[in-house]
Amino acid sequence: MSKYWSDVVHKLTPYVPGEQPKINNLVKLNTNENPYGPSPKVLDALKLEAAGTLRLYPDPNSDALKAAIAEVHHLDSSQVFVGNGSDEVLAHVFQALLKHDQPLLFPDITYSFYPVYCGLYGIDYQTIPLADDFSIRVEDYKKPNGGIIFPNPNAPTGMPLPLAKIEWLLQHNTESVVVIDEAYVDFGTESAVSLINQYPNLLVTHTLSKARSLAGLRVGYALGSATLIEALIRVKDSFNSYPIDRFASAGAVAAMQDVDCFEATCQKVIATREALVADMQALDFEVLPSGANFIFAKHKVRDGAELSAKLREHSIIVRHFKSPSRIAPYLRITIGTDEQSVLLLKALRAILN
Amino acid sequence: MSKYWSDVVHKLTPYVPGEQPKINNLVKLNTNENPYGPSPKVLDALKLEAAGTLRLYPDPNSDALKAAIAEVHHLDSSQVFVGNGSDEVLAHVFQALLKHDQPLLFPDITYSFYPVYCGLYGIDYQTIPLADDFSIRVEDYKKPNGGIIFPNPNAPTGMPLPLAKIEWLLQHNTESVVVIDEAYVDFGTESAVSLINQYPNLLVTHTLSKARSLAGLRVGYALGSATLIEALIRVKDSFNSYPIDRFASAGAVAAMQDVDCFEATCQKVIATREALVADMQALDFEVLPSGANFIFAKHKVRDGAELSAKLREHSIIVRHFKSPSRIAPYLRITIGTDEQSVLLLKALRAILN
Repeated sequence: MSKYWSDVVHKLTPYVPGEQPKINNLVKLNTNENPYGPSPKVLDALKLEAAGTLRLYPDPNSDALKAAIAEVHHLDSSQVFVGNGSDEVLAHVFQALLKHDQPLLFPDITYSFYPVYCGLYGIDYQTIPLADDFSIRVEDYKKPNGGIIFPNPNAPTGMPLPLAKIEWLLQHNTESVVVIDEAYVDFGTESAVSLINQYPNLLVTHTLSKARSLAGLRVGYALGSATLIEALIRVKDSFNSYPIDRFASAGAVAAMQDVDCFEATCQKVIATREALVADMQALDFEVLPSGANFIFAKHKVRDGAELSAKLREHSIIVRHFKSPSRIAPYLRITIGTDEQSVLLLKALRAILN
Repeated sequence: MSKYWSDVVHKLTPYVPGEQPKINNLVKLNTNENPYGPSPKVLDALKLEAAGTLRLYPDPNSDALKAAIAEVHHLDSSQVFVGNGSDEVLAHVFQALLKHDQPLLFPDITYSFYPVYCGLYGIDYQTIPLADDFSIRVEDYKKPNGGIIFPNPNAPTGMPLPLAKIEWLLQHNTESVVVIDEAYVDFGTESAVSLINQYPNLLVTHTLSKARSLAGLRVGYALGSATLIEALIRVKDSFNSYPIDRFASAGAVAAMQDVDCFEATCQKVIATREALVADMQALDFEVLPSGANFIFAKHKVRDGAELSAKLREHSIIVRHFKSPSRIAPYLRITIGTDEQSVLLLKALRAILN
């Protein structure tokens, strides 16, 4: 606390990301990174970029990157906004599109950055409880609101929502923006991008940190009608003209263009996930249906906090959320390689015996 | 305009950065980039980073980078905040430290991003006219305020303010934060960093885009008391956990550590500037005293807008500001290489004859 701080600072409760421990030889299954590296073409592009233009500002509009993203999604560049990771994109979305007189709606169990953004921008919000089976009931969002946001698949459950439910919501909610945060969509969830040309109030956010293995490069994007994108551009150009550096741009373009590598990586992760789910169930874990590169699982008897702590003794880090109490029994486990699954299962067997 | 936009979007007038033309063979003297590349050690560091960690998130706290910056400035890491270019750092500064009941004060002629930030965060401000000779009169800032910010050297004039004046201001303004934006300080202006341990309300911002030749990498930082830095960290952690990507961090650490390269580059730019000023004066230009890597010059007879347009016909881009009218006669010219000075002077002679 300090007289020099703006009022908002006193009230902030910042988001706490998953730990990035500076310890070698950990099996790191806590922050949903991809176990496989990015396309080799990304590295080629980065080497070219290093050649000699670092002294110059990047393109403030990131035209090349927007074009590459638009092509993958069969959209126009005017329907694409890019930012320094999807967290920055979401921050601009909250400020530019989700601050209205009516409260913003999002699930009570979801990405825990959403209420933090609301605090930063003074946005009123209301949480909508998930159903008993942890699914999102879109009918519950049919009420006056200043916007709706949720991830699909949802975090930290990993549960996918069928596209028909999202379309129903768009049909019944035309006066405010509906944001579908698709950070994990590529691991087996239906994308709402196909609905963008029909619904001018639909915004979909993506990241290159997960399926495209570029968490270290910080690139995310939003897709929607040109009107929604214009609002984001206006905020971005009032905040930071050049958020995407030359390496991030070059690497992201190459990653978007290498569709084969992207699809092969996703398929490997999905195969590892399905095998891990079966093995966890055999160890008496209940695992929620996952359309993501992580699973949300609780043991029938043992406590989530205890299991997380014991796994750490085996040099395996997973994520455990103490609150809300409804998810405290669960562990969120990132899908790693098959070899990492073997290590995880071995450790769990040792702990459970 | 759209019903989906938050109110703030309707009112924004975004900052317009200097043009980044996609044309080859231009003499680009419009955005104050360094004509020399970064330290070769930056490129070595980037090649190492590319090796294989891109799939992993960067350190959210950028500890290695903060340590490298702290060492250069003889401060503690707790006195360092880093961001995606000094524009992002400044955005967080405005939101975290400069929004109060009293208006923020800054010069009427200065970095034109300042009023844009005020619009983005709803900050009341008041501009203080520069003196007739374009200098900042610190006595004029001795009035109730919610904060004070100006660049030193000032933009777009390039004029340095002596350190004793800044210390006088700090002695007479203890109840709000004083931000000295030192983007261009390394080209011959005295830095206020030496005052940080005496004045808990002093914040100094720097960029790696100018003297360290890394505009393409997007890294800037703020230095101040740990209390001021904490406010910035709280806002950053409510906005984007990982603004500094792995390349930006690795390259910036190497750039900070190569002090010899940094100093040699600055000396070369200063020598080119001094020679260019003499040659411009010989062509009947009045040039304001510059402590920056650019000069602000007006011809005794010819119009600024006309000269700017004619230089473009010679494939030379400089920056011209139409408003306020007091600076409309001037050109802001980035210091390039000696060879670029020769081309500029040749073009000016052709235009003026």
